[in-house]
Amino acid sequence: MLFVTAPDLMFYLTGFPGAEGCVTVDGNGTRLYTDARYSEAASRALDGSGITVCPPPAGGYIKLAEGASRLAAALSRTTAEEYIALCKAAGEVTDCTSAFDEAMSVKDGGEIASIRKACEIADEAFTDLLGAFKEGMSENDAAAELEYLMRKYGASGTSFDTIVAFGEGSSVPHHRTGMRRLKFGDVILVDFGCKWGGYCSDCTRTLLFGDDRRHEEFKKAYGHVLKAHFAAKENITCGMTGREADETARKVLRESGLDKYFTHSLGHGIGINIHEYPYLAPRRENILKDGMVFSDEPGVYFEGSFGIRIEDSVMLEGGRVVSLTNTDKELLIL
Amino acid sequence: MLFVTAPDLMFYLTGFPGAEGCVTVDGNGTRLYTDARYSEAASRALDGSGITVCPPPAGGYIKLAEGASRLAAALSRTTAEEYIALCKAAGEVTDCTSAFDEAMSVKDGGEIASIRKACEIADEAFTDLLGAFKEGMSENDAAAELEYLMRKYGASGTSFDTIVAFGEGSSVPHHRTGMRRLKFGDVILVDFGCKWGGYCSDCTRTLLFGDDRRHEEFKKAYGHVLKAHFAAKENITCGMTGREADETARKVLRESGLDKYFTHSLGHGIGINIHEYPYLAPRRENILKDGMVFSDEPGVYFEGSFGIRIEDSVMLEGGRVVSLTNTDKELLIL
Repeated sequence: MLFVTAPDLMFYLTGFPGAEGCVTVDGNGTRLYTDARYSEAASRALDGSGITVCPPPAGGYIKLAEGASRLAAALSRTTAEEYIALCKAAGEVTDCTSAFDEAMSVKDGGEIASIRKACEIADEAFTDLLGAFKEGMSENDAAAELEYLMRKYGASGTSFDTIVAFGEGSSVPHHRTGMRRLKFGDVILVDFGCKWGGYCSDCTRTLLFGDDRRHEEFKKAYGHVLKAHFAAKENITCGMTGREADETARKVLRESGLDKYFTHSLGHGIGINIHEYPYLAPRRENILKDGMVFSDEPGVYFEGSFGIRIEDSVMLEGGRVVSLTNTDKELLIL
Repeated sequence: MLFVTAPDLMFYLTGFPGAEGCVTVDGNGTRLYTDARYSEAASRALDGSGITVCPPPAGGYIKLAEGASRLAAALSRTTAEEYIALCKAAGEVTDCTSAFDEAMSVKDGGEIASIRKACEIADEAFTDLLGAFKEGMSENDAAAELEYLMRKYGASGTSFDTIVAFGEGSSVPHHRTGMRRLKFGDVILVDFGCKWGGYCSDCTRTLLFGDDRRHEEFKKAYGHVLKAHFAAKENITCGMTGREADETARKVLRESGLDKYFTHSLGHGIGINIHEYPYLAPRRENILKDGMVFSDEPGVYFEGSFGIRIEDSVMLEGGRVVSLTNTDKELLIL
């Protein structure tokens, strides 16, 4: 028996999003066990799919595992509490995390279409946002505007908390969007994405709000990060490891002496989850394949001063990188 | 050693939100281990707090557990993968979920202030939203507007995906907000909340978009749900169990024959997480205490027709229920 309770895996197995409960796959086929909050919608959505919607068993979902001689669970997305209960209920419990990771990393046509749509919405919204920046607005105002636009263009929500960083806040890779107000000459860094059909997009742009001639160092660094971003797009191919892919961009930053400021990895898989397998990072040996969608996001951070990150969601198709987010990446000075 | 990796617990222990990594508490005090994405901001925020910010140990966070003879982990928020590794690294591993649940359920002054602010923002935004409903707008449009307003009023984001249901969609307790357009005579159900200072608010209102004289059954049911909502507020006291608290509202719906349509429980704790301990539900024996914040949300659902839910975030203070969300609950016909 395959036994999953993680919402992302339940969605992947059934195509029905958002339910809490449990999915089992065994000799009885695929069953979605969920309570009255979701059962009406699930039954309607899964009608004719061959997946049976069932009410929660008396005594809890773990009851379903009783008597299974061999049970597969994704131990990376199972709580320790549940695992201990599963071990008591079933015979052997084996980990199927890597099977899910690999299966979910290679997207089919429908999944690609959803991600493309999520990327298009992000592009459209960001393009509109550019006209909305004005002196004195807060990071929160800009995030509100961008999230509103993504929703208006059809997104079901954000794929993560939108990051808007003005000025020195951009030097913190995971800056908390706040009440800092936009001033002439500020760096603006926006890291954002939305969901469509249950799938995520992810994009980052860095720009300037007016050029006050103090920006020579920034502009030089921007050129190097952009070169690293494009080097990854040009050189990443099917069959590479995550480490080799990361190195395509890191090498460019090393040549200009900026690699020590590139404090994170080049990218991560994107799908139902905003961060998933594969990883494009110095110590990752996962192999990149056609149909994988991931981020290309080199960045450099100068503590207390400024940061730059340039990120697209991309996919591998016919062995090469195709970009799914496509707003302009040449340095923009508003 | 206490060893936690769950983001909610890391925030609870340190007051620093959003970091990935690990918090340990032992003879060396409290330490936050996190990587370069968060370390600059964490060091700044925790300066003078007595909490030390440390880089990730070589070999991964599990290394920190090595040699601990007794290790406490919250097994409900630890993955099975991590648990298996912790059992190998440390001596005895014990579960401290219930200690966290109970400690986190009783809020201190600062936590209450954050939740109050999140509730005030939700109230303000919803009040503005009422003027924005118009025929032909989609559920998505309304959700976009509401989320925009919450952001504008200072929220850092939503506490869950906003639910807007028009017409028959309201009969699904966890309806997926979509492209259904608003028509004269529709029921409107909005379930929403936001985050402020890392803490959540949660509120639901049900109203009518015009009255077309088919609404007698709806209005009667609305009256009963509202009565159940207020019965809970009046009768829930310190020392009650979750079961007894749930019964205060369920009893009212039983008297009018509507209890079979009340398909979920009365409420859940609200704090850093939108759903947390305690639970106000038929089979829960958890004891309610002063300082606990939870939802009061009776609802009835008539499949394919309409649903009604009336929810406030409330707290127990001096033994009695105090409401934290406060927009009008009398039936509103726009």
